[in-house]
Amino acid sequence: MKIFVDAMGGDHSPTEIVKGCIFAIQEYKMPITLIGIEEEIEKELKKYEYDKKFINIIPTIEIIENDDEPVMAIRKKKNSSMVKGMELVKENDNAVFISAGNTGALLAGGLLKVGRINGILRPALAPILPTKKGPTLLIDAGANAECKSQQLQQFALMGSLYMEKVIGIKNPKVGLINIGIEEKKGTEMIKETFKLLKNSSLNFIGNIEARDIPNGTADILVCDGFIGNIVLKLTEGLAFFIFQALEETILSTTRGKIGALLLKPSIKDLVKQFDYTEYGGAPFLGINGGLIKAHGSSDAKAIKNAIGQGIKYLEKEVNKNIEQEIKKLKIKKEGEE
Amino acid sequence: MKIFVDAMGGDHSPTEIVKGCIFAIQEYKMPITLIGIEEEIEKELKKYEYDKKFINIIPTIEIIENDDEPVMAIRKKKNSSMVKGMELVKENDNAVFISAGNTGALLAGGLLKVGRINGILRPALAPILPTKKGPTLLIDAGANAECKSQQLQQFALMGSLYMEKVIGIKNPKVGLINIGIEEKKGTEMIKETFKLLKNSSLNFIGNIEARDIPNGTADILVCDGFIGNIVLKLTEGLAFFIFQALEETILSTTRGKIGALLLKPSIKDLVKQFDYTEYGGAPFLGINGGLIKAHGSSDAKAIKNAIGQGIKYLEKEVNKNIEQEIKKLKIKKEGEE
Repeated sequence: MKIFVDAMGGDHSPTEIVKGCIFAIQEYKMPITLIGIEEEIEKELKKYEYDKKFINIIPTIEIIENDDEPVMAIRKKKNSSMVKGMELVKENDNAVFISAGNTGALLAGGLLKVGRINGILRPALAPILPTKKGPTLLIDAGANAECKSQQLQQFALMGSLYMEKVIGIKNPKVGLINIGIEEKKGTEMIKETFKLLKNSSLNFIGNIEARDIPNGTADILVCDGFIGNIVLKLTEGLAFFIFQALEETILSTTRGKIGALLLKPSIKDLVKQFDYTEYGGAPFLGINGGLIKAHGSSDAKAIKNAIGQGIKYLEKEVNKNIEQEIKKLKIKKEGEE
Repeated sequence: MKIFVDAMGGDHSPTEIVKGCIFAIQEYKMPITLIGIEEEIEKELKKYEYDKKFINIIPTIEIIENDDEPVMAIRKKKNSSMVKGMELVKENDNAVFISAGNTGALLAGGLLKVGRINGILRPALAPILPTKKGPTLLIDAGANAECKSQQLQQFALMGSLYMEKVIGIKNPKVGLINIGIEEKKGTEMIKETFKLLKNSSLNFIGNIEARDIPNGTADILVCDGFIGNIVLKLTEGLAFFIFQALEETILSTTRGKIGALLLKPSIKDLVKQFDYTEYGGAPFLGINGGLIKAHGSSDAKAIKNAIGQGIKYLEKEVNKNIEQEIKKLKIKKEGEE
């Protein structure tokens, strides 16, 4: 098992990334390879006392920035931590690469440098959404703006396997994001997806309206990458907006300020419910290797969790399971026709 | 100017609807016609002292329920308040119909019974979203699950005219909901829409990511009805979820309970920011008559505001403006080709 971490990606790199790796080797007792500008990594590492045999460095000299054009960056910046990480995942059979860097570049690099699992039409980005009942997987959250129903069927399968193996939910419930609960609602593609999911062996519970997403009715929310991006970003933006407005409203009166002091611990608990970092990052499912996108704003704890998630991903052989189950899906489909 | 109100639609009908009409005649000094089960309306009216010449009743005997299949309901329940209201809008030149009833039936009835404005490809439902900077119009919020770019261009135009004439925003800013701010982001349809909007005379400010929706960067958010439904419902669901979680978290400790008492007025102010009812209902733009969908949970104040909105809609001749501007849009397009 090989764990590679992009030291140069994310808003707080390399400081929080290196710190997260130190946390991770303490918790998981597994060796980690940091990829990035060597002297910057070394400078951070000097801050900690740790077992040297658990940390390796692979030096690179380029950095893919957040505003780099993804495909171009992957093609041109061959000596960047991200491209190197992808290459290592490709070369090693049982490896995972964790990066908090440019999402588009990670998606492009996954396809161009690592490639798809046999039988997978389109890999999909699958972050966790916080809900009333716990974590829900959103798939696809932006890798594929336009999708076909068969791709969504595969997303549902990959998401189910991930939730079962890595998050530990037995027989996870699959919901299809739609504009109504009735079978005949939505676009032609969505109606076709409904049929495919209904006839699959997955635990399909039907359409989920956006209003019900925060209730956590489904463990996996299936949608195309356009919808998924809207759901993910609107959830983030709205939670931020409400908490900010709450703070401003409260602090505008003395009465409110005193109340706020008393409420601080409770509100902190609530904000924690919206803490994506608890579940690590978003796996890029369908890629023939472990690829995990940590949030750009990841702190050390988030990086540590993403590494833990990567270890579980490899231990549970998620990709091997995906490859096997996708074959069955295909056979079943051909048998039916 | 004729104002028709569906007394039988919504969660609190006819009680809150009738009460809203009483508020409205006091505020706007305009006659209102209530449509619905006569004895139920009369029973409610008896609760109030009001100038009798301002309230008329048109009796109907059927009710379109929320779980009725929309097209079927419009076709079969010919003696319902909703069908009657639509017919009256069709028959009268300068009339508006306000209903808090079955949204699908209102949309179906608008198309089947009233019809489109000349030149309009697809009418669109346009509710107001609460944002940091005030009201933003979301168009389309669910009338058309699948759209073409030319339809979205028309939505942008109709939305602009509405925001200018009814809400009073000069030169309103049009944003296109997309998964990134760059021109080349999104589906083919969205990219095509970007071009159309960029080349139009509208005040187009570019793509808006979902994360920025709560900031109120644009006055009009253009999208297809699938995306619009997701945005509207997720906003509602998430605000409800956060406020409910806030209440539960706070009330779980004594310290929190005391804090909550002190904060109650501030939080009430905040919840008010999410109060859709301030702006009345959602106009069904592009229909050849005034059609306003009030929220299903509308109370008397919301109904009064929706009536006020209807009056402004007619006074400002929104539909006449739409018809004129749509013609220009067409001429411009033909001239370009």
